[in-house]
Amino acid sequence: MAPTLNAPLETGAVIGILGGGQLGRMLSVAASRLGFKTYVFDPGTDCPASHVADQHIQANYDDADALKRFADAVDVITYEFENIPTSALDMLEGLRVIRPSREALRISQDRITEKDFLTSLGLKVAPYANVENADDLEAALQVTGTPSILKTRRFGYDGKGQARLQSPEDAAQAWADMAGAPSVLEGFVDFSHEVSVIGARSADGEVACFDPGENVHLDGILHTTTVPATLTASHRMDAVLLTANILNALDYVGVMGVELFVTPQGLIVNEIAPRVHNSGHWTQNGCTVDQFEQHIRAVAGWPLGDGVRHSDVVMENLIGDDMNRVEAIARESNAALHLYGKAEVKAGRKMGHVNRVVPPQPTKIKR
Amino acid sequence: MAPTLNAPLETGAVIGILGGGQLGRMLSVAASRLGFKTYVFDPGTDCPASHVADQHIQANYDDADALKRFADAVDVITYEFENIPTSALDMLEGLRVIRPSREALRISQDRITEKDFLTSLGLKVAPYANVENADDLEAALQVTGTPSILKTRRFGYDGKGQARLQSPEDAAQAWADMAGAPSVLEGFVDFSHEVSVIGARSADGEVACFDPGENVHLDGILHTTTVPATLTASHRMDAVLLTANILNALDYVGVMGVELFVTPQGLIVNEIAPRVHNSGHWTQNGCTVDQFEQHIRAVAGWPLGDGVRHSDVVMENLIGDDMNRVEAIARESNAALHLYGKAEVKAGRKMGHVNRVVPPQPTKIKR
Repeated sequence: MAPTLNAPLETGAVIGILGGGQLGRMLSVAASRLGFKTYVFDPGTDCPASHVADQHIQANYDDADALKRFADAVDVITYEFENIPTSALDMLEGLRVIRPSREALRISQDRITEKDFLTSLGLKVAPYANVENADDLEAALQVTGTPSILKTRRFGYDGKGQARLQSPEDAAQAWADMAGAPSVLEGFVDFSHEVSVIGARSADGEVACFDPGENVHLDGILHTTTVPATLTASHRMDAVLLTANILNALDYVGVMGVELFVTPQGLIVNEIAPRVHNSGHWTQNGCTVDQFEQHIRAVAGWPLGDGVRHSDVVMENLIGDDMNRVEAIARESNAALHLYGKAEVKAGRKMGHVNRVVPPQPTKIKR
Repeated sequence: MAPTLNAPLETGAVIGILGGGQLGRMLSVAASRLGFKTYVFDPGTDCPASHVADQHIQANYDDADALKRFADAVDVITYEFENIPTSALDMLEGLRVIRPSREALRISQDRITEKDFLTSLGLKVAPYANVENADDLEAALQVTGTPSILKTRRFGYDGKGQARLQSPEDAAQAWADMAGAPSVLEGFVDFSHEVSVIGARSADGEVACFDPGENVHLDGILHTTTVPATLTASHRMDAVLLTANILNALDYVGVMGVELFVTPQGLIVNEIAPRVHNSGHWTQNGCTVDQFEQHIRAVAGWPLGDGVRHSDVVMENLIGDDMNRVEAIARESNAALHLYGKAEVKAGRKMGHVNRVVPPQPTKIKR
């Protein structure tokens, strides 16, 4: 019989988190605010979440004994990233409730499955086609044209596992870059900017969304999220409703990040992430209940916070050498630092972020 | 040679915290936001801070080996409560920098020393007299009159170790209640309400104060703190300046709570606490940098946050059976819960608090 979780968790309950990076770290801190303990499962020594979690189970995702020990010790399981090995999930889901569900993970782990799912809901996505060999890529180019972008179907993040095709002549190199991995070719969308919605759904089916944030990327990595986003009133409403649509279709429990391209013809879904999301970090200093607590509330069977924003925020990621700016940022008025405690600074590595808070302004609405 | 700490601590540094209650817990979480690890020294099993600290050294304050191990493992030492045994401090201060300093602790550990110190700064306190025996108490009553209140000089908190004298006839029973402990008799002050200022001073001598909060007590325990407090502009200024005066006189490094009685004749200092303070919990949801991060910044040699308040807040302590109201509070809009993860609910035990956030209003100033 599948494990169930009927009552809200009480103070002292243990939330198991798969993955001990910065998202696991901030989830762990949020859980502590509600009186919960967290056990973090992560293969890394000194991973960021281990500094703040009650327990760190340091083991590989194929260590069946450790996985069982983890499941036995916790009251519910959640995760900070979507690329958890299927074998680990197969084992865990027989032992403890996993939130968000296995189905949400399955869909978002594969870009084709995800796009098929979104399309089935009547949502717009960029033109796409499945690519498993060089011939597929030729055919796919008929669907998308160029420029287009070839991505591995699985395990991509922060621009990794991607190749751009400026013209059909780039096809051979792009396919070579995928190293044989099943891929998807995506057409370019003529969008003015990207926004994302951080939505949440409780075990009772209640849905709450934070205000959409406007995202700017640098070198394939999120650079800033600004709230409020530049959006018409109707696009703002669409963004929230389509997020609720996705959450309900999946019978989802937890927080999800939904990235959207804004075009004159409407919103196009770029991708969904079944977890707390970098573009939702602004909520830590803009809302009474932030995305991390919102996720923990959902996972624990609690009512959701309402997502109301008390301040405008610009979130900036601190990547690699940006750490050299920390001392100056600490002197800024209204700047809230969030550092991840990573010992080693590497180029392209997310080391922390800063939320610059400004008093609420009239919402920017384009009409 | 006394240990020193000249440069600001960097990511990965370890902050040692003496005491693992809820204040240590929230200090630990704040430290994690700045990339620090925390080691908590506390004799209790499963103490609140142990759930979120990187390490918990579980030992008694007279365990010299454990104290040395703790001091060797951390970069700086701070504390969450002022009643740390002197013998432990004697040992630790030779090994690591302690912030706030030993001198601040020495003064605030003894009510008479504290009142003498405050008086020496030209600040007003309630009439008081030293009481070491029944004869002293007779003499002290000539100073304070009745009603008055007899308190142990050391180790009192939340109304413990106190006896009220409605008339001189209560003297014998009151002195018996002190069980022979050196005490102080304090006269009553005719005050309209109590406010407190949470002030901070950095290692560089920079001072920043949060807005004064207005405190209401129930059964000798803080019930609510409301910000902004009801204060005239001149009292508001006095409150901040006298706090700065105290901090500077002590060459203080860290956060201090200063409790003040408001009277038509001016502010009277009730007591000072050389640590983060229950009446400063509102800053977690009213300010970008809260009192816990402010304390950690000071202790780590960082610049202070500016203490600016972005929202009005009413903080309510959740004591004992108030935990039964948590589910209802979780459904309130704009209510931020902070639970301490204490396994056992006891009458009079601080289990958590809730910050109810309201958008900023024009400051209430009586003229």
